Amino acid sequence: MTKKKAAVLGAGSWGTVLATVLIDNGYDVTLWARRRELAEEVNRDHRNTGYLPGIALPETLTATVSVEKAAADKDLVLFAVPSQSVREVAREASPHIGENAVVIHASKGFELKSLKRISEVLAEELPLALSDRIAVLSGPSHAEEVVRKSPTTVVVAAGNSEVADEAQALLINSYFRVYTHPDVVGIEIGGSLKNIIALGAGLSDGLGFGDNAKAALITRGLAEMARLGMAMGAQAVTFAGLSGVGDLIVTCTSHHSRNWRAGYLMGQGKTLDQVLREMGMVVEGVKTTQAAQRLAEKYGVEMPITRELYAVLFENKEPKRAVEDLMNRGKTDEMEEMLQGTR
Amino acid sequence: MTKKKAAVLGAGSWGTVLATVLIDNGYDVTLWARRRELAEEVNRDHRNTGYLPGIALPETLTATVSVEKAAADKDLVLFAVPSQSVREVAREASPHIGENAVVIHASKGFELKSLKRISEVLAEELPLALSDRIAVLSGPSHAEEVVRKSPTTVVVAAGNSEVADEAQALLINSYFRVYTHPDVVGIEIGGSLKNIIALGAGLSDGLGFGDNAKAALITRGLAEMARLGMAMGAQAVTFAGLSGVGDLIVTCTSHHSRNWRAGYLMGQGKTLDQVLREMGMVVEGVKTTQAAQRLAEKYGVEMPITRELYAVLFENKEPKRAVEDLMNRGKTDEMEEMLQGTR
Repeated sequence: MTKKKAAVLGAGSWGTVLATVLIDNGYDVTLWARRRELAEEVNRDHRNTGYLPGIALPETLTATVSVEKAAADKDLVLFAVPSQSVREVAREASPHIGENAVVIHASKGFELKSLKRISEVLAEELPLALSDRIAVLSGPSHAEEVVRKSPTTVVVAAGNSEVADEAQALLINSYFRVYTHPDVVGIEIGGSLKNIIALGAGLSDGLGFGDNAKAALITRGLAEMARLGMAMGAQAVTFAGLSGVGDLIVTCTSHHSRNWRAGYLMGQGKTLDQVLREMGMVVEGVKTTQAAQRLAEKYGVEMPITRELYAVLFENKEPKRAVEDLMNRGKTDEMEEMLQGTR
Repeated sequence: MTKKKAAVLGAGSWGTVLATVLIDNGYDVTLWARRRELAEEVNRDHRNTGYLPGIALPETLTATVSVEKAAADKDLVLFAVPSQSVREVAREASPHIGENAVVIHASKGFELKSLKRISEVLAEELPLALSDRIAVLSGPSHAEEVVRKSPTTVVVAAGNSEVADEAQALLINSYFRVYTHPDVVGIEIGGSLKNIIALGAGLSDGLGFGDNAKAALITRGLAEMARLGMAMGAQAVTFAGLSGVGDLIVTCTSHHSRNWRAGYLMGQGKTLDQVLREMGMVVEGVKTTQAAQRLAEKYGVEMPITRELYAVLFENKEPKRAVEDLMNRGKTDEMEEMLQGTR
């Protein structure tokens, strides 16, 4: 029996760790990295020190800088590149992906120039035969814990329930528990917007506000995420699940989170430029704030946290004033606050 | 103009801190303590070292051990005693509370012997004229932060919306932001059941599971809370608010939380008896687990986390096995998992 073959496109922390999950599941895995040094380090040292310091990768994991070589002749192609790179990488991979492959993406964000969800971008760039074979992976899953096989629970959503079942069967194992979900829109939006709230939670922590203030911010954030989600066609209940509340909690309260960390550093007085330089990784929440600000306008949805974050990130609003303005909003009935703009 | 007068019944950390909030709001406040030493310490040293070490209380705060003296002739009577003591204290206070007073309670739990909510217990024990004057206070609010005037957001719910407005006006100030809410049942149930999930989250942390596992547990916990709540007449959306998600987050992720701490210590191998002795305070989640286990049976609702916690607390189940059993449940579709037993 030949081993099943998988490609993981994107060798950041999440892509690399998902590659190790697939190896644990018995796949022959090729990891695509944009940078030659990174691919070489994986092949030679079985390490990815830039993204996963201290972690020994399986020796059977091979990396390449050729999208074609990675994508060709695979049973599974998993996209784990930054949201703004998905279209370009998908376009390059498109001619090489077999039409029976399952395509899963794990990117969290929107394409800024089109305001499209990542599965929409993929459907546009991949061959028509694959447009029904796309699933999204989301949920509370710090890569640093998954690679240590710490128990983790995630969801895969696909418009076609058979594809969701296939994706689940490919990914599930004893430490990586995968649920299926029918609401692709909700799962993508939850996983994306939570990074905005994590920036806000980091800001609040960096400014020295307490756990009470942060919990209130996260609660309001969840309502804001659900409001935009519903306007875009998601189901409300999805936001109460792993890709909503679950991912929100882990991203806002764990110090592993880079979006939280970026907000925290800004709360302590650094500028966005300084923070991004210091972190040296893509902080998805920044572009997601821009996208969500436009989506809120487009769909006519109230998103006060997104608006304040946008002002801090792009209009030099003082973080302290932004958080205070959020705390002192006019509404005094919780239901009115939560449902604003939705009725 | 005479100062308005308030009584706070219960001198634990939350009662004492709510008394300081009312003093900041311009009230003349009498704090009732069961123990004479505690009342004397408040009056003499302006401290409550057992519950709020290191905190200087306002010198104008007076304490008494007489329920009658505390409750008589007040504009506001706030109950902040453990859930299992509410009936007894309410019965003693009942003849002394004026019929124009607003009654607010901040207890989180159910009366175990009757399985009643605290506002139901109060309505039974207080004069009929007051049955329409009862509100509940809940939300993410560690006492240790409120007393330092760290911004905090809470809800007050009352069946009579004018009473909710009155309660809001009495409590709100610049650092203690109070929203009104119409769903008394949901607010009480959210604030109570979250302590069960916090015990579970502590258990998970104490056993060394990671943030991914804890986030999954909290997400499942929220669904479980909402399932019982809806069966008991609450609105689903209430659990997405401050007394649901908000209080859940702060209780499960902040090390201030005593329910989290009790679970953590058990996860590290201590018995329930050892933990309760060591902490020396009421851990509401323990009795709430018993009550919820019975309520789940009564209403025919699936509550897997409550059931496993019950087995750990009262049937000597090994914590590690309980958490593992929760992780490895049969359902593989998230919607089925969330909605189990509700349709």
